[in-house]
Formats: sequence, structure tokens, C-alpha cells
Amino acid sequence: MAQLLRVQNFTVSSEGIGAGEDQTLENPFGHGIDPSKLFTWAGATASWPMRTDGGGSRGLDDYLTRDYPRNIGAEIMGRNKFGPQRGPWQNHEWRGWWGDEPPFHTPVFVMTHHERPSLTLSDTTFHFVSGDPATILEQAREAAQGKDVRLGGGVSTVRQFLDADLVDTMHVVVTPVKLGSGLRLWESPDELLDRFHLEVVPSPSGVTHHLFWRK
Amino acid sequence: MAQLLRVQNFTVSSEGIGAGEDQTLENPFGHGIDPSKLFTWAGATASWPMRTDGGGSRGLDDYLTRDYPRNIGAEIMGRNKFGPQRGPWQNHEWRGWWGDEPPFHTPVFVMTHHERPSLTLSDTTFHFVSGDPATILEQAREAAQGKDVRLGGGVSTVRQFLDADLVDTMHVVVTPVKLGSGLRLWESPDELLDRFHLEVVPSPSGVTHHLFWRK
Repeated sequence: MAQLLRVQNFTVSSEGIGAGEDQTLENPFGHGIDPSKLFTWAGATASWPMRTDGGGSRGLDDYLTRDYPRNIGAEIMGRNKFGPQRGPWQNHEWRGWWGDEPPFHTPVFVMTHHERPSLTLSDTTFHFVSGDPATILEQAREAAQGKDVRLGGGVSTVRQFLDADLVDTMHVVVTPVKLGSGLRLWESPDELLDRFHLEVVPSPSGVTHHLFWRK
Repeated sequence: MAQLLRVQNFTVSSEGIGAGEDQTLENPFGHGIDPSKLFTWAGATASWPMRTDGGGSRGLDDYLTRDYPRNIGAEIMGRNKFGPQRGPWQNHEWRGWWGDEPPFHTPVFVMTHHERPSLTLSDTTFHFVSGDPATILEQAREAAQGKDVRLGGGVSTVRQFLDADLVDTMHVVVTPVKLGSGLRLWESPDELLDRFHLEVVPSPSGVTHHLFWRK
């Protein structure tokens, strides 16, 4: 069985925007972007990892939310997903956005040009790595021990791996929210039709799931 | 976390028919029913358990197919799903339809009024049990060790558990195939709306997924 590189539950606005341009500690998704608007669809499901009340919907959006960890052995993310810092690390106090129990439960490869020792929080270990997408994917595949690798974003990281033609499957959720400006995943999903099959599945919740897999 | 009783990937015709009335060894789904017609949608996916070629679609139908084993610790099935025999077991030579490697990988509780010793094939053990649905569910829950229980069918078994109000979630696939006569799951899915939420999700493949969860 091949080890796939999978984008999962990657959410963009109706214009294809997945993040703002001026990410800060106070605004992790960038100026003018309220992430709660983008993730309302997932937060409403029974499988949302932060849910503790036992409720939530169990329809289509729930199927897609709960597929997030299935057969994933490692994640690759951009440094901008890990934190708002830019340039060399001033210190190692920043430990990601996710507290002591990050929701990854696997090795995570954070792409950065700036060296930093690996960091273990519960069952997630962050490795800080530089190199081209193919080299980093090779490292992540080895760490995933036969399981798939998730490409966690953000926008620039997904674009880099798409440009290198390394993505096998991609689940992008288009929300009926307009953001105006920010980092775009695409002008239109049709840009990928030369290389991918695409199913467009509207959910009763109002979002539209875009399911891509390699031709 | 509650242990759910889940119906998964249960496929019916456009009239709601899931099996014929005269099941035999040659026609496991009953006279006039060609099961390949009902299951084309799942067989076309990458996650179809019988697939060995590495191909298959990875769109919506694939998400639903691969959810089949997720967090399942036991299955309950009717005797008519296990085999075409009726009445007391003449012998114990019949070992189910699935060969030496059944696709369940958990304890399976086969509902029958006729006693028979348990049967282990690879990592599946069939237990032959009698009693009302609530009693059998209790046994299956214990065997599932905290995981969910799948209600595997056929039609009469699903109806029995629905009548006893024991089903928590149900995924029914309506195929665009007409069968004419046979055992009906429903006249219309709307019959269940008093007790269940329902999302109706058309798939690009032509089938329609019905996702129910308890109100």
C-alpha cells in the first residue's frame, strides 16, 4: 500500500483564502480573519477533537472531520502554522498554539530555515527541518512507519507541495464566508483538474467539500 | 464516550429493498437480486476491502466505505446474513459466506433460535445467540470493550433494532436500481424523522447517502 500525502479538512473562504497576511499572536490566522468563522462547520460535529459535551452532528461534515487522524503517521506543516514568529528563533519558549496536548499525536515536521531542537509535548514531537518539499516528505514518510502523511498547511505550504506535484489526496472545505484579502489557495479549484479528479459535495451545513485525488 | 450502535454502508434499491425473499446458496441476496448491482458504488472505491489493485476512487463514496471498520468492536447480524439455511443447523459445515478471512475482524453475534458452538475464522469469532435485541446488544457491547457495535443487517434485523429504538446512527445508501420485490427497509426514509436527524447527500457516483443520527 502506497503512503499517501493527504491534505485534510483544509478550510478556505468562498474566494479561496485560507489565511490573512499579517499573522500575529492575537490573530493566528492573520489580520481580519476570525478563524471561528472558517471552522464553524467542523466545530458543530460530534467528532470535533475539542468537544467534551457528547453532542454534535453526525452527518456528512462529521464523516469528514473524523477522517482527520485515520491512518496518519506524521504531519508536515509550515512554520507559520506553528507560530507567529518570523526569522531566527529568539528563544525556545514558544511551544505551538495547542497547549500541552497537541491534536496531532504523531511526529510533526515544521518547515523552517532556522534550526531548533525537537520538542515533545505528550504524544506529539515537533521536528524543525529545512529542505525542499521532496526531502522533507521523505523524512516524514520514514517517521510515519508505513502510514500516510498529512500536509497540515498553511496556504503557502500546501501550494509548495502542489507545485512540486507531491500531493496525493486533498480535502478542501469552502465556507460561505467572504474574507476580502489574504493568502489564496486558488483562484478556482478547476486549476487542479489537469492533475486531479475532483468531486464537489455540498453539505447541508452550507459548506462545500472538495475532494481531490490524483489522476 | 457512549458506545453507539451503528448501521454502516447498508445498501437498498430505489424502492428501499435490501434483499430478496428467497435466499439460497446460489442467490445470497434472494431471487432476482444481483448483489453486484447494489454494491457497485462501494466496489469502485479505493477502500473496498476486496480491492488488491491499488486503484479506485477517493471521493465521497470512499470516505463512507472506509468508515466501515472505524472504532467498531463487535457486529450483530441476522442469521440470514450468515447463511441461507433455515431451521435447526443440520451440521456445522457452513462457515459463512466469507471464506477463511471474514471482513469483520471482531466478535460477531449471529441472531438465531438454534444453538451452535462459536466459530473462529482468523480474527473473527462468530457467536450464535438468541434473545431480544436489547439482550443481544448488551452482549455485543461487552465484547466490543468500549468500542461501537455495528448492526450488520439484513433488512429484518435492522428493522427489529429500529423498532426497539436501539439504533444510534445509520448510514443507508440508496442506489438508482429497481428491484421490484423483496424485503423493504422502508417505504420512505421520512418514516424515521420523528426519532432521527437525517442528511441526504447525493454522490457524484449516482447513489444517495442517507445519514441518520438520533435526536
